[in-house]
Amino acid sequence: MIRFNNDYNQGAHPAILSALQQTNQTSYAGYGEDEWCEAARKEIRKYLGETDNEIYFMIGGTQVNYTVITAALRPYQSVISADCGHINNHEAGSIEHTGHKVLIVPAENGKLTAKSIADEAAKYYEHGEAEYLTQPKMVFLSSPSEFGTTYKKEELMEIRKVCDKYGMYMYVDGARMGYWLTSDECDVTLADLADLADLFYIGGTKCGALLGEALVIINPKLRDHFKTYMKQSGGVLAKGWLLGLQFYELFKDGLYFEITKKANKFAMMMKAAFEKAGMSFYIESGTNQQFVILTKAQVEKLAEKFVFEFSHDVDENHVCVRFCTSWSTTEEDINILVDELNTMI
Amino acid sequence: MIRFNNDYNQGAHPAILSALQQTNQTSYAGYGEDEWCEAARKEIRKYLGETDNEIYFMIGGTQVNYTVITAALRPYQSVISADCGHINNHEAGSIEHTGHKVLIVPAENGKLTAKSIADEAAKYYEHGEAEYLTQPKMVFLSSPSEFGTTYKKEELMEIRKVCDKYGMYMYVDGARMGYWLTSDECDVTLADLADLADLFYIGGTKCGALLGEALVIINPKLRDHFKTYMKQSGGVLAKGWLLGLQFYELFKDGLYFEITKKANKFAMMMKAAFEKAGMSFYIESGTNQQFVILTKAQVEKLAEKFVFEFSHDVDENHVCVRFCTSWSTTEEDINILVDELNTMI
Amino acid sequence: MIRFNNDYNQGAHPAILSALQQTNQTSYAGYGEDEWCEAARKEIRKYLGETDNEIYFMIGGTQVNYTVITAALRPYQSVISADCGHINNHEAGSIEHTGHKVLIVPAENGKLTAKSIADEAAKYYEHGEAEYLTQPKMVFLSSPSEFGTTYKKEELMEIRKVCDKYGMYMYVDGARMGYWLTSDECDVTLADLADLADLFYIGGTKCGALLGEALVIINPKLRDHFKTYMKQSGGVLAKGWLLGLQFYELFKDGLYFEITKKANKFAMMMKAAFEKAGMSFYIESGTNQQFVILTKAQVEKLAEKFVFEFSHDVDENHVCVRFCTSWSTTEEDINILVDELNTMI
Amino acid sequence: MIRFNNDYNQGAHPAILSALQQTNQTSYAGYGEDEWCEAARKEIRKYLGETDNEIYFMIGGTQVNYTVITAALRPYQSVISADCGHINNHEAGSIEHTGHKVLIVPAENGKLTAKSIADEAAKYYEHGEAEYLTQPKMVFLSSPSEFGTTYKKEELMEIRKVCDKYGMYMYVDGARMGYWLTSDECDVTLADLADLADLFYIGGTKCGALLGEALVIINPKLRDHFKTYMKQSGGVLAKGWLLGLQFYELFKDGLYFEITKKANKFAMMMKAAFEKAGMSFYIESGTNQQFVILTKAQVEKLAEKFVFEFSHDVDENHVCVRFCTSWSTTEEDINILVDELNTMI
Repeated sequence: MIRFNNDYNQGAHPAILSALQQTNQTSYAGYGEDEWCEAARKEIRKYLGETDNEIYFMIGGTQVNYTVITAALRPYQSVISADCGHINNHEAGSIEHTGHKVLIVPAENGKLTAKSIADEAAKYYEHGEAEYLTQPKMVFLSSPSEFGTTYKKEELMEIRKVCDKYGMYMYVDGARMGYWLTSDECDVTLADLADLADLFYIGGTKCGALLGEALVIINPKLRDHFKTYMKQSGGVLAKGWLLGLQFYELFKDGLYFEITKKANKFAMMMKAAFEKAGMSFYIESGTNQQFVILTKAQVEKLAEKFVFEFSHDVDENHVCVRFCTSWSTTEEDINILVDELNTMI
Repeated sequence: MIRFNNDYNQGAHPAILSALQQTNQTSYAGYGEDEWCEAARKEIRKYLGETDNEIYFMIGGTQVNYTVITAALRPYQSVISADCGHINNHEAGSIEHTGHKVLIVPAENGKLTAKSIADEAAKYYEHGEAEYLTQPKMVFLSSPSEFGTTYKKEELMEIRKVCDKYGMYMYVDGARMGYWLTSDECDVTLADLADLADLFYIGGTKCGALLGEALVIINPKLRDHFKTYMKQSGGVLAKGWLLGLQFYELFKDGLYFEITKKANKFAMMMKAAFEKAGMSFYIESGTNQQFVILTKAQVEKLAEKFVFEFSHDVDENHVCVRFCTSWSTTEEDINILVDELNTMI
Repeated sequence: MIRFNNDYNQGAHPAILSALQQTNQTSYAGYGEDEWCEAARKEIRKYLGETDNEIYFMIGGTQVNYTVITAALRPYQSVISADCGHINNHEAGSIEHTGHKVLIVPAENGKLTAKSIADEAAKYYEHGEAEYLTQPKMVFLSSPSEFGTTYKKEELMEIRKVCDKYGMYMYVDGARMGYWLTSDECDVTLADLADLADLFYIGGTKCGALLGEALVIINPKLRDHFKTYMKQSGGVLAKGWLLGLQFYELFKDGLYFEITKKANKFAMMMKAAFEKAGMSFYIESGTNQQFVILTKAQVEKLAEKFVFEFSHDVDENHVCVRFCTSWSTTEEDINILVDELNTMI
Repeated sequence: MIRFNNDYNQGAHPAILSALQQTNQTSYAGYGEDEWCEAARKEIRKYLGETDNEIYFMIGGTQVNYTVITAALRPYQSVISADCGHINNHEAGSIEHTGHKVLIVPAENGKLTAKSIADEAAKYYEHGEAEYLTQPKMVFLSSPSEFGTTYKKEELMEIRKVCDKYGMYMYVDGARMGYWLTSDECDVTLADLADLADLFYIGGTKCGALLGEALVIINPKLRDHFKTYMKQSGGVLAKGWLLGLQFYELFKDGLYFEITKKANKFAMMMKAAFEKAGMSFYIESGTNQQFVILTKAQVEKLAEKFVFEFSHDVDENHVCVRFCTSWSTTEEDINILVDELNTMI
């Protein structure tokens, strides 16, 4: 069985394992106060333009999301998210668990729009800061979104304007950042993000690392005692250098971009093959996640050789499923899938 | 510089790295639903006697502690801890952050006693379940304690009786479990713990793993939706097999016990050398952490070659410092320290 | 200016003030452990049929709502509410502040339906108790709703079935309970509610008391340490007899029903006059709140003599406003309004 | 039976009931946006000197305490309290329920001292803002304390210095403020408090009102969105004018001070009689609460005619009990007690 179900089904890029091996018998300071974290920060900062920033290495995306939100918001403040946002559907209520309301806005193409954000914010801000509503103070974006779609620079700039108008923070969940930045449709760089967002994270877990996410905080207000928030939220790894080392490997020679770009290429091959086989897509995605609409017979056939993920029912005879390439997908894997799809034309 | 400052300053036992290497290109199901987690559970269960149990692999100790406490307690319930307990001093208020009071009891020898627990519990239970106090519902024990001391089986049995009397859960934080179970003074086994405690965790991070803790839940009441609590608390690793695989390696042939036993042996060599050099101890410890009282001159001298940790001031001229061996300490390291101490006699 | 803006703009029914006066120099036990609370419980129970129950007197509705939800739900559980529900819009995020997600369902006629509840619950329960979603465990109903509409017995029975199917609690916010039970359209009694709901509250603040709500808990599971939850949530009044005394006065001879029935009668007179003047309603309400659609000119004219509440914009030229009668509305007040409306025909 | 068990066992001063009666049929704006609240603020401000401030009327002390602490602290911050502090013992863990640790310091004479506060704060601030401890950010004082003792101006000034040194807020719980300010030993005024504290509350419930506390916020940083915090915490009374009206009555002609002064006088008469009867005190109190040490026989005898409160066991034969006068204690009541005590000489 070949796994196309997600982008975190194999260990790590060999360069990372090799680095772990080489450093395994060296002693380091704990809790991220080591030289690898510092080296990784330097490599990442090469991509961040002129902005002043702080970079923290954390363990997983859910944890980054609720820690960031806890640290940024006061108890009367809330966060705006698309209805399909990860914090709304896949994190077991962890944002509310820390005391904050998630204001849910219907997604368009898996994404928020400047207009939908402005409309939601206006309910509060354009009614005299309505005393008994929560104050929307952060906008939560994912790019790629849960459906593989991405934001254009223009869209982010429009959203930034709305955030500025109402004093809201703009936060980008980049669990799949690499697949965004290397997709053909992308006109955004990390330096742009550093310019536009208050904070964002660069995903490691889904982009070649064993585990780990690099959180970049631009807005100085959001840095206050952040390490303590991390500790309180279970996000400080005792052997913190393990995270720094991985990001160092991923960023020092652009490996992060190389391996995600390849995954995107394979995704496009897969996409073309689905299309050729007459299958349609639930949503048009230019990144490593493809949401295909299949008949139940097609699902059954493909499930003989491949693992993929059920997304949702479309109608009585059709379902939407996710096929996902990753940094670990091989050309061989993708060829087998394409061949199989060719038999289904 | 040789690090004796803690037991988490090197990567992992080579067997673990080797296992990661061998499985690196195999695809696995995510979130701990994989065969390595299952295999690790089987190996660990060999030590757990007849008790029915569930085992969860989590990322770090702080996270295990607050997730367990959140899942076990209702909002009006609290947890009894020694004043030197990890949850009281080293977790940035994470227990209170989840809404629960920590009832603090002065430690004796770094530990709680059945009597001190009973006295604290009585304030509530012997006054008609005093309506405006929180209800003590869990007892938090660490063994080894923050000062390296450990509980005897007899002590645990007495504590169990108090817990039974008042319907309180007994929870053992075993971040350094291996150093306890293999110390000369230990008369407790994992099977005993499974008999006595409601839940406990077996530390990986400080006992040879890159990261990871194995939580064993005995009391069925405490298992309800535990995976969801883990997710909500940021404790589910996407590549969960990485944790299972490490515990499998540590437990399949007793490696866990072998490497911690060796660290204890080195600690006893270190202890003897301190004593020979006329230095005294803040507390008598039979495990890998030794708390020595040094003059400032002695500190300065030792700091030239070794990294160790400041614990607290003793008087104007003396401080208490921690020297810690670990699974990664080498015979060479310990000999250099012993030699150095011998020059200070 | 005559106030029709809400149903809590005057002190209390004279019988209540008189009772306060008569008992003012008597000493009572504190925190609700007094004879008036007990007497009030007895009077209320005469309406509750055969069900076993506990009754608690609390201070205000927001407080009742979040205390009930905190006490009933575990951290991974959530509550289903209509989008226009009080807990979603008017309580400043107090439910999320206690750690729980509010699952929002579009209202029909200001209300939830059995079908909309079932659909929302199915997302979790019909997908293998989806591990990373919160578990919907309570249904929050308001009757009268925020728009004055009420549930029929048949509707409540259907909702009860859905709750039973999934093991969810049914909770009815009865801030305006009196206006419901005495409306012409009502086919529900307090005894029916005691049969159908797990818990509900009988509003005092908006129905003739200075302050206070009577919470009736039917489901024994939800009573555990409830008084401690109340204390923790700031809901125990030191001079608790003040609440008991008021409910005693309201219930001993049916005063509660008499005064709310009169308010409904006045509301129907008002409604008829609006209709006669050619004005239409945003929603059809049979209770004391009427949501009328007015032109801006009409608003201006009515605002010269009456205080009423803006609800929302309808279109460029029309707004929806709330006119509200209450236990304290006089026949004279209503006649002045009717006369004014008659001039606008 | 005559109640000396607490100072909240009777309704309200007659002037308050009379004011309620007179305004009962007037309509008011809700939620504290009415003229009585504003009038009460004016009266209170006459005592507050030149300081700029905001005044909020809330329902009860527990609620004020947790709302203030929630609003003032960030998730990583904690509050220092005496071990006998109300927030530590009598509020069912409500502070921790909002996510904050209470740092407990042993009381001296029921009070904190500048030194004990400084020592506790130093654990954090003098160790490089220890990353994994919570940051002490507020000092919680009660005056009168739980044992009736009070702070001298000099003591408050010393505490203020410590607060300034570490940037901590000074908060005074004045549930029994009147009994403090009118005691013979008091050298503090409300204007002094306004100078020294960041915020404090003036208790109504225990000083002549039916219910209600007046929170005075001096520090502008602590006012941000405070009304929303109040709503979220269940602390906004719908008929807010009821609170304003009561404080207006209490403050307009100094009634607040007159009635509490009389209670103190009675307490001193009671105290003298206990002393004359050879009974000793657990603690020396100059306010309305007296903690007497009695033999069990004495308890039994006094309990025939009087209600008083058990405080704690002293030894096998003695207990400490609280006798409490209040604004509602009559000369007749106190004479009966004194006569009874005279028979016990």
